[in-house]
Order: sequence, then structure tokens, then C-alpha cells
Amino acid sequence: MKAVQYREIGAAPEVVTLPDPEPGPGQVLLKVAAAGVCHSDIAVMSWPAEGFPYRLPLTLGHEGAGTVAAIGSGVTGLAEGDLVAVYGPQGCGRCAKCAQGKENYCLRAAELGIFPPGLGAPGSMAEYQLISDARFLVPLDGLDPVTSVPLTDAGLTPYHAIKRSLPKLVPGSTAVVIGAGGLGHVAIQLLRALTPSRVIALDVADEKLALARTVGAHETVLSDDRAADRVRELTGGLGAEAVFDFVGAQPTVTIAGALAAVEADVSIVGIGGGALPVGINTTAFDVAVAAPYWGSRGELGEVLALARGGAVEVHVETFGIDEAPLAYERLHAGKISGRAVVLPGG
Amino acid sequence: MKAVQYREIGAAPEVVTLPDPEPGPGQVLLKVAAAGVCHSDIAVMSWPAEGFPYRLPLTLGHEGAGTVAAIGSGVTGLAEGDLVAVYGPQGCGRCAKCAQGKENYCLRAAELGIFPPGLGAPGSMAEYQLISDARFLVPLDGLDPVTSVPLTDAGLTPYHAIKRSLPKLVPGSTAVVIGAGGLGHVAIQLLRALTPSRVIALDVADEKLALARTVGAHETVLSDDRAADRVRELTGGLGAEAVFDFVGAQPTVTIAGALAAVEADVSIVGIGGGALPVGINTTAFDVAVAAPYWGSRGELGEVLALARGGAVEVHVETFGIDEAPLAYERLHAGKISGRAVVLPGG
Amino acid sequence: MKAVQYREIGAAPEVVTLPDPEPGPGQVLLKVAAAGVCHSDIAVMSWPAEGFPYRLPLTLGHEGAGTVAAIGSGVTGLAEGDLVAVYGPQGCGRCAKCAQGKENYCLRAAELGIFPPGLGAPGSMAEYQLISDARFLVPLDGLDPVTSVPLTDAGLTPYHAIKRSLPKLVPGSTAVVIGAGGLGHVAIQLLRALTPSRVIALDVADEKLALARTVGAHETVLSDDRAADRVRELTGGLGAEAVFDFVGAQPTVTIAGALAAVEADVSIVGIGGGALPVGINTTAFDVAVAAPYWGSRGELGEVLALARGGAVEVHVETFGIDEAPLAYERLHAGKISGRAVVLPGG
Amino acid sequence: MKAVQYREIGAAPEVVTLPDPEPGPGQVLLKVAAAGVCHSDIAVMSWPAEGFPYRLPLTLGHEGAGTVAAIGSGVTGLAEGDLVAVYGPQGCGRCAKCAQGKENYCLRAAELGIFPPGLGAPGSMAEYQLISDARFLVPLDGLDPVTSVPLTDAGLTPYHAIKRSLPKLVPGSTAVVIGAGGLGHVAIQLLRALTPSRVIALDVADEKLALARTVGAHETVLSDDRAADRVRELTGGLGAEAVFDFVGAQPTVTIAGALAAVEADVSIVGIGGGALPVGINTTAFDVAVAAPYWGSRGELGEVLALARGGAVEVHVETFGIDEAPLAYERLHAGKISGRAVVLPGG
Repeated sequence: MKAVQYREIGAAPEVVTLPDPEPGPGQVLLKVAAAGVCHSDIAVMSWPAEGFPYRLPLTLGHEGAGTVAAIGSGVTGLAEGDLVAVYGPQGCGRCAKCAQGKENYCLRAAELGIFPPGLGAPGSMAEYQLISDARFLVPLDGLDPVTSVPLTDAGLTPYHAIKRSLPKLVPGSTAVVIGAGGLGHVAIQLLRALTPSRVIALDVADEKLALARTVGAHETVLSDDRAADRVRELTGGLGAEAVFDFVGAQPTVTIAGALAAVEADVSIVGIGGGALPVGINTTAFDVAVAAPYWGSRGELGEVLALARGGAVEVHVETFGIDEAPLAYERLHAGKISGRAVVLPGG
Repeated sequence: MKAVQYREIGAAPEVVTLPDPEPGPGQVLLKVAAAGVCHSDIAVMSWPAEGFPYRLPLTLGHEGAGTVAAIGSGVTGLAEGDLVAVYGPQGCGRCAKCAQGKENYCLRAAELGIFPPGLGAPGSMAEYQLISDARFLVPLDGLDPVTSVPLTDAGLTPYHAIKRSLPKLVPGSTAVVIGAGGLGHVAIQLLRALTPSRVIALDVADEKLALARTVGAHETVLSDDRAADRVRELTGGLGAEAVFDFVGAQPTVTIAGALAAVEADVSIVGIGGGALPVGINTTAFDVAVAAPYWGSRGELGEVLALARGGAVEVHVETFGIDEAPLAYERLHAGKISGRAVVLPGG
Repeated sequence: MKAVQYREIGAAPEVVTLPDPEPGPGQVLLKVAAAGVCHSDIAVMSWPAEGFPYRLPLTLGHEGAGTVAAIGSGVTGLAEGDLVAVYGPQGCGRCAKCAQGKENYCLRAAELGIFPPGLGAPGSMAEYQLISDARFLVPLDGLDPVTSVPLTDAGLTPYHAIKRSLPKLVPGSTAVVIGAGGLGHVAIQLLRALTPSRVIALDVADEKLALARTVGAHETVLSDDRAADRVRELTGGLGAEAVFDFVGAQPTVTIAGALAAVEADVSIVGIGGGALPVGINTTAFDVAVAAPYWGSRGELGEVLALARGGAVEVHVETFGIDEAPLAYERLHAGKISGRAVVLPGG
Repeated sequence: MKAVQYREIGAAPEVVTLPDPEPGPGQVLLKVAAAGVCHSDIAVMSWPAEGFPYRLPLTLGHEGAGTVAAIGSGVTGLAEGDLVAVYGPQGCGRCAKCAQGKENYCLRAAELGIFPPGLGAPGSMAEYQLISDARFLVPLDGLDPVTSVPLTDAGLTPYHAIKRSLPKLVPGSTAVVIGAGGLGHVAIQLLRALTPSRVIALDVADEKLALARTVGAHETVLSDDRAADRVRELTGGLGAEAVFDFVGAQPTVTIAGALAAVEADVSIVGIGGGALPVGINTTAFDVAVAAPYWGSRGELGEVLALARGGAVEVHVETFGIDEAPLAYERLHAGKISGRAVVLPGG
């Protein structure tokens, strides 16, 4: 089969031919229909050799969807031909976190050498993919794999961050989204579908602010050094009850802290390397700042249910598997609008 | 001033002239702009003399809104001319429930003889009303008192019931509203604004089902003995994650129990006198059945915020104060569409 | 191997010899050290042939603990020799409830023919038991399998019921336990370990009330028709914030409803066949009545952690596997103090 | 009457004679029995003239308890002779936060010029104190005002911080208290009474660690640069599910961040001026860091209920009102064991 691999530190990803995998006991073979291309892959490929955490070559793709092609012995509850999405942040299934479906926070993954597909384990950017357990496959139930595959990360990650803050997003509240790109433009749609809050989007680029309005932001604000003041004005001086920073650079986390209301949540999702200092008087009283990671198995089911109801849509640009290296190039160059998706099946 | 009073057991309400009240220390005088006419007033006026809980004559009106006309000594934070709504289920302000703003569940109201306006204490169906404490007046902040006055009960009561169930109303879930009348048609709008759930409305009347669809129900089902089966079919056999019964008669609570999913909430709000037996196997596992009452002070603020954002609208039919007895007659006869509102000011 | 089976409707359980099972792919073979004897087995064995839900013969035992004896292909994260407890209310592992670890509320178990061990599937009352997935085995981590095996049901079931009510069990609150037997005497210990509430135990038998005090109840009240009034007196008229009924008969659910405070939780756990009618004025405002079932995978881990810390202890009476029929007889006759445990290993 | 005042920037507090106050409409006159002496008073008295937020002279004392001496017109629900504690972080009573009893987070206090007693408004360190509203007086119901007065701040503040984290403090979890002084030694008692968690106390002083063990800490660890590693060892590498830092200096917040488990809460309560940077990889996934402030009205009631049950005790050292300046001196010199309390009545 063809697969897109990162083979050597610093090199571009490459399309290679590998033997077709076969499912062992308890495993499922997925015929991949679609695999998302993500900025974090590019981040991974920029890391130096020293301390690089994954074994190479690595088949890329941590967003995947497709058809069950074959089932290993002992697997029940799945049938060949089922259309499914892959749950990425896989865990041991047995620790206290996994027992609640929070496999993204598995307490034993490191110890047991468990990695997400495409981020250590063989990913979805191949014609076939071995899935280690049926529980990692979530039914698409009528969703198109191509347009819904980005929901497994670009949808699930903001969903998980937003879910923590739902109790605070009561009528009259304000939610701020910083960065109206891949994850941010999904977050805006999620906030509109899940809450009665006023949604304010911040970005440094006018076209991203235009996109934010298109997908439902009530207000948009240029993300400069007057942004926090502007949000305070828009909220009668109170600030926002929840802030989601999909950039995560030092300037944006600083803005996030400055515009957070008393008892607000600030979620730092973007991997921009910034950190917001939290102490007495650094932010308003009881602002809770956290850096969440991906989402739970149950949350992925909820995100897909939202998409099924039409509440969230991701604009995708598709590429054949041979064009996958090009897709990464274009993403790196900022030339992808929405999400790039590779179609290994054709 | 003119006031609408229930003066004698079994008699019709009457318009009388009373001395204008004056605010004592800590009190606020409200010039009433609008007062809602509610089915529960009719229920009260149907009660027998024996065991009648309120002193007569009683000025009616437990939904009120108007303008601050005068302020007693010691009152701060309010100014003459402020437009406000009246919080009805008033409590002592100091017990464990009141300390959390849940004055509707005040632990000492009975002992201290505290009654809601219009339901024991002098109500809003008069030109002026004395309010015992400024905390019972919630700013309208731009809302029209006439169209928003029903929100103080017909909005707040379903809002309170729905708020308990929000954690269960995740994407993919179903909420059922039984009775698409005064409270039910508001509940449908609230569910659409607050949750991503599919909303199914049940009623015995076709025109109510039509209204339900107009205000946002995704599906409507005739409320007969096949209703629970129909909802099970619409939900792939699972049932609804939350059920709100605004009728509360024995047939409707039975339907509510029959269509509730595992771990669902059932809220019995209507005063139809039914009761749902809860035990092992009477309903699905862990269905929580409760009969909530009105709502908290904070929740009233949230309902008004929703209205300010345009998410909820009550159709009102207005009457002058001299026509208030007629309004009750017409409500009793089922001839009011939406909510009847009396305008004592003109 | 020897196994204790219910073989014929109405007959007593019997010790039989069966072939030793072998683990297939994904399965685990447990060498059973201890299996709990439960009233619900007796209830099952009293059911008529018509509508009997399980296939016979049925190996009994829905509380089990032991040692991993062998591992099927494809199983990871477990090793031979591990001491583990069996999680009983097993589900499909993939539905929305299972994805959150709430396998006790699996949405597909009935459809897929999944039953708990001992309640449809082969149980723990045998020298060996096949476990269909490693996730159903929870590490004992130093706990004695004999004294901790009852925690898998008699501990987990009250823990699950109590966990729902923790937010209401604040300082100054009261928790009532009805029935101080197998589950109830564990519930009292759990409430003392988990909450600052005052714990009141009700029972019809003086020796059970004495046991209740021994395991930590602050107050005990004879469970007669004055019980609810007595609890009201003990709580300054307010009633209890949470009520756990481990009898579940009509008289006890009636008492439970009568002593529940405003916004209280009532959990009906006992299979006594009673049902509490819930409607306006049947109970205090917003009392939430539910009948929960067993508990989640994560909760079992928490119960075991409590036992590890010494916070909960179950008195057990042990029997060899050949004496298992006698254990059921004695339990039926009310002659077991605490919990009967069968030791298939010796 | 005598009162202890801070009269001039940089000067020591002074005992002065003031006219006896009289209650106006809506006000209550308190005869003060006990007033707590707090480190934050010393912090206030160290602030420079520029930007000093309060008007001088200022009667000190933000922890107060005593007897209702007189009641202004319009006040209900209180009687002369009632023994009460003063709720300190008073708010407007009407904003969205105050409507939920979270007056500590009042949205309008600054705008309306509302200050806590002793921190802007006249405090409890005087023979009499005017209370602006009856809702700020919480019944002592049998508690001794002298030993319970510190609970209004030194009890309420840790209680509020702990309450946020209760859902995370399940069986098997670990709570860490940094700083076993005035607030910290109460926090340890609260954690033991409210949760089944293992409690680990950190401090730099051996006698504080001894105190920590006396009041219930399961483990104590010297608070040095190996402290976080030591806590990781004690928790099998996982870290603590909740961390409460009552020092709040840069070294302690750094330790707090380093020992926090995945999804842990870190609460920075101490006013040591440190700030913990939160971003991707600065702490474990989804660690929520916040700096809470004091507590709500309802929480004060809960703290007092805990004390009534004997679950929390504060060691106090008493001083006459004329000795109040000495009490501050001794506190500043680190010579107070437990909490200093001034008795204005004798």
C-alpha cells in the first residue's frame, strides 16, 4: 500500500510503498478514506533529532476516517463495511482516566509506549491502517468521511476546551475566540451551537475576521495591544466569561488574561509557546487558566452528532495521496483555506 | 389607586380603589407598567374556603414590571425612573437557600409568613406596588415591560427546570416538551437557545403543535397513548434525555416516564395533579424525576438576558386594568393566545 | 473445574463439574479466589419460567475476584498472576455511555446479548472464569480478594448512588440510609468517608440499628410510621438532603419521600418493588427521585481505593465451593451476618 | 466607644475613642465580641501612600462576631441578642454574582464604593460596628464567637478554594497544602472533613509540619527544591489532584505547578506575590490554575456548620482591645501561634 511517511529528521514527508497490514487478534483494519493534514505535523517535523520522541519512519496522519476492511479474531460489535472515524489520543483503556473515557489523559500511555496514530504510531495517511482496538472507531452514521475527518482533531480539540466552560457560558455571557483559523473557526461554530453567549473573535488578519463573522461570530476585534480594552468596552467593563486561545503565543495569552472576567475560564490551546502567569492580581479573581489537550472518546461522539445536525462545517481542500507532500508545503506556506484532507483511496 | 383583587372565595376578581402605598424604610414603590395574567391565579380562585392559604382581599399579579416611583430610606443602588421586573418567589434573604439566591426554596418563608406578590402578598395588578427589598427588582435594561413581564414566571419557571438538565442535553440528545402552551412554547425557545438538542413537542391540540413548530420544535407528536412509542422511534429506541411536562396530569406524567432514556431527567412543572411512580423498573435506569418550582434570582437575570438577545419572545395580548376581570374570563375560556398582560398604567 | 450453577427453574443451586475454560483472542482467564453471595441471586432463582431472561444452566456469582491465570492473544496491559476484581455490569465498550465508562448503562447491551457474569453470563462461582476483555479487571493493588470481593457490588452500588448526591451533602446536611444490611452498612461507611453530613440510619431491626451505629451512623431511628417525623425533628424540620433506600419496599419509599428536604435526592436502590409517586406537592420542591443501578468502571476503582485507605470494611463469612448451596440457604434464612463469600480455590 | 484604627500611612494602629454609632434604616448595630487579627492587615499597613485604596482613618478588623445590639427601621428576621458572625466580602446584593450569593465577586462593588469592613469600611475592631444589611450577619447557633471568629476569613477562604476542587478529590486522590500556618492548618482540617483524599502538607518550618500532622495531614514534606519530586514519589509519579498554596511566593507557586497531576486544580491563595506561568507543557495537561478570593455567603454558613460539628478548630490567642496594637506587633514578629483575636468587649 502507499503511505505518507516522515522518514528522516528535517526531511520533507515522502510517499512510500509498504506491505498491506493484516489485523491480529483484537485489531481492526481500516481502509482509509480521508486523513487530515495538520499544523502540528509540521511542528513535529521541525523538531531537532535530539530528544525527538517518535521512532522513524513514521506514517503521518492523526485525523483519520474510512471503512472497516477486516476484523481480527475476538473483535465484536463492528462489521466490515462500517464507516468510522478514528479516535486519536488513545490510552491504555484501564487506568482511572481511561475508565472514564478520558484516554487523552491516560495515566499509563507513556509507560506503556502508547502513541496516537500519526504521532508516534502509524497514522491514517496510508491506504490501510491497523487500529489496535474497536473502541477507537466511532461510527460516522451518515457523515461524509472527507468533510468530517477534521472533526477528529480540529473539531474535538476546541469542543473539549469549550465543554469545560459551558457552565459559565450562561445567557448574557461573552466567549472570546483568539485565532480564527483551523480550530478557531470551528470553535466559533461550536460556541454558537452550544451556548447562548455572545461570541467575539480576535485575529490579526482581516480575512480571518471576515471568516469569523461568516461562521457566526457576533463581533470581531483586531488582535493588537488594544484588543483587551476593546473587549472590555464591548462587555460593559466586565470582560469575557471564557477565552479560548488557539494561537497560544505570548501576546495572545497576555490578551486572554487581560480580558478575562471574574471567575472566567482561559483555555490555552494553541501551541505558540506562550504562558500566562497566574497569581493574585495578575488576572481577575478566580480566573482559571488551563492548557487542555485534544478530547475524550465520548466528546468525539458528541462532535460528530453536532456535525450530523448541521451545526458545524469545516471547509476542506482535498489532495490525492501522491499530493500529500504538496499539501504540507501549501499548509506551511499558509495557502490552505480551511483544512487540507488527503484521500488515500483515490 | 386602582387594583385588581380577589376578595371573596369563589367570586370573580374585582377592580377596586385603594389608597396609594408609600415606601417605608428599605422599601421601594413600583409604578406598575405591566402585570401578567396566569392560570395559577385561576387555580387559586378555585380553591375552597377551608384551608385557603392567603388572607383576602388579595391584590393579584405575580408577574410584574414597571418603573421605580419612590425609594424608602436606607435603599441604595436603585434610582427613581429605573425600569425593572419583579422577582416573585421572594424569601428571607438569609437562610442557606436564600444565601445562594434560591429564594424560591427559602427555608423560612412559611415560618416568617413571606408570600410572593399576588400569591399571598399584594401583587402587581395595581397602579402601584410596594416591594419589600431592592434585591427583588431586576433591571430590564432596555426590554419592553409589556412583552417581557411574562418572563418573570412563564419564562423563569421553564428556564429553571431546563437549567438542571443542561449537562444531559449534549449534542445528539433529545428534549421533550409536553404541553406547548404558555410555559411550553417558551420552553421550546429556551431549549433551542441553550442546547444543541433535538426538541420534540407533544400536545393534544393541532394548533398548539403548529405553534410549537413555529417557535422552533424540530418534531411534534400528538400526545396520545402512542406518544411515548413515537418518541422512542424518533430516537432510535433510546428515548429522551430530558422531559419537561407543563401539563402535569396523570396521562402526561405517564408519557413522560415512558419516553425517558437511561439517566434522563423528568421535570413535572404543570399543576395538573398527576404523579409519576419512581422505583426499580418503573422507568429506565437512573431517570431522575422532580417537581421544580419557579426559579432563582440569578436565573431571572439570565432569562432577561436571553430576551435581550432576541432568543425568546412571548406573544402577549394586552388589557387595561378595568378589563382585567375580562382577561381572566377569557383565559379561563381558553381564548388567550400566548399570555394576557394587564397594563395598570393605561 | 467445579462450578455453582442454577440449572432448573425453582431448583436449588448445584455444584457441578465443567471443562476448564481457555481464553480466546482478547479474553482473560481468571482463577477465582472469591465470589460473593447476593440476595439478588435468590431473587433471580425465584422468578417463574415464563419470561425468565437468562439461559440455563447459569454459573452464579456477580461479585468476583482472583488471579489472572492466562491471557488470550491480543491482550495487553495485564500479566499472569495479577490480582484483580471483576467489574460486573459489562457493556459494549463503544456506545455513548460506555465511552464514559458507564457500562452499567450501556445502550446496546440488550441488543448485543451482553449480560453481567452470574446474571446471564457465566459467573465467578467457579474455579475459573473467562473474562471477555481486560478492561473488566480492576487491580486489587494489595487488597485481600476475600474481604474486598463484596465491594464489586455491595460497595459499588451504594457508592454510585451516593456519588450523585455529593454536591448536596455539604456541611450541615443530613443523609439518611434506609436498611442497614449488606449494602446499607457499607453506605453508612461511605457517607462518613466521603461527606461531612450527619448520617441517620433507619431499620426495622434493633440489631441492624446497633450495627449502623458501630459502622458510623450518628443517629438511628426505628423504621416505622413515625420515622419521617422523627427525622424531621432531628433536622429542625428541614428533612434530609439525600435519602438512600436499600429496601425499596412501598413503606420505605414512602418514608423516603416524606423525609426528603427541598432539593433533596432520593435514591431507590433496594429491589423491594415499591415506587414513590413524584408530582407537585407529593414531596418537597425539586426533590429528585431516581432508581440507580450498580456503578461505573471508574467508580469501582474509587471504591477499591477507599477500602485500601481503610475507610470501608465488609464483614464476610466464608464458604468452600461445595458449601455454596448452603451459603444460599443461610442467606435466604437471614442467617448471614455481613456478606457470604464463596472461596472456589479452597 | 473604643476602636482600633489605622490612622496614618506607615504608623502603627492606635486605640481611639469614637462616638457610639446608631443604626439607620436597614442597618444593624453589632456589639462586637471578637475580632480577628490578620496578616493582610499588616500588608495593608505596609502599602505606600500613593495609590492607597482606602480612606484614613480606618477602623481595622475584617473578621468579626458579636451580638445584635440594635436594629434599624425596616430590618426583619433578626432580633436583639442574636449571636452572629459578620460576612466580610460584602457586595451590592443585586448584580449577577451577588444574586448567587457570591458577594466576594460583586461586579459593582468598586463602582459603588463598597468595601469590606476593616478593608475600607469601618471594621470589627471596635466596641460597636454598624452592619449595612442583615444578610451580612450569619447566625452562630451555639458557636463561641471567640474561637469561631477566625472562620469568617481564615476558615472561609480555604473552604472556598477547596470547594472548587471537591469533584477532583475522589478516593485515591491526593491534596497538597503549601504553608501550614493560619489558613493552611485550617485547610488541612477542612480537607480531612470534606474529602477522602490523602493530604500532604508542605512547609519550610519543622514546627509547622508538626502542627500539620497534629491537625490531620497524612504526610508532611519539607518545602524545598526537592518537594515536588518527593510528592511525585508519594503519589506513584502521578502528582496531586489539587494543590492549595497559602504562601503564594514564587518558589511555592513553582512547586505547586510542578507537583500538579493531569487535570489537577492549583489554587493560589497566599499573597506572596508569585505567579505560575500556564501554557502548553508548563504543567501537566489541563491543570487549572486560579487565584480565588475569600468566599460566598452560603459557604460561610457551611464553614460554621463544620465547626459546629467539631470538624474544624482554630487555636486562638486573645487580647483586650487596648492590647490590639501589641497583637499586631506580635503577629508581625511571627510570635502568634494560631490566630490572634481581639475582644473589644472586655
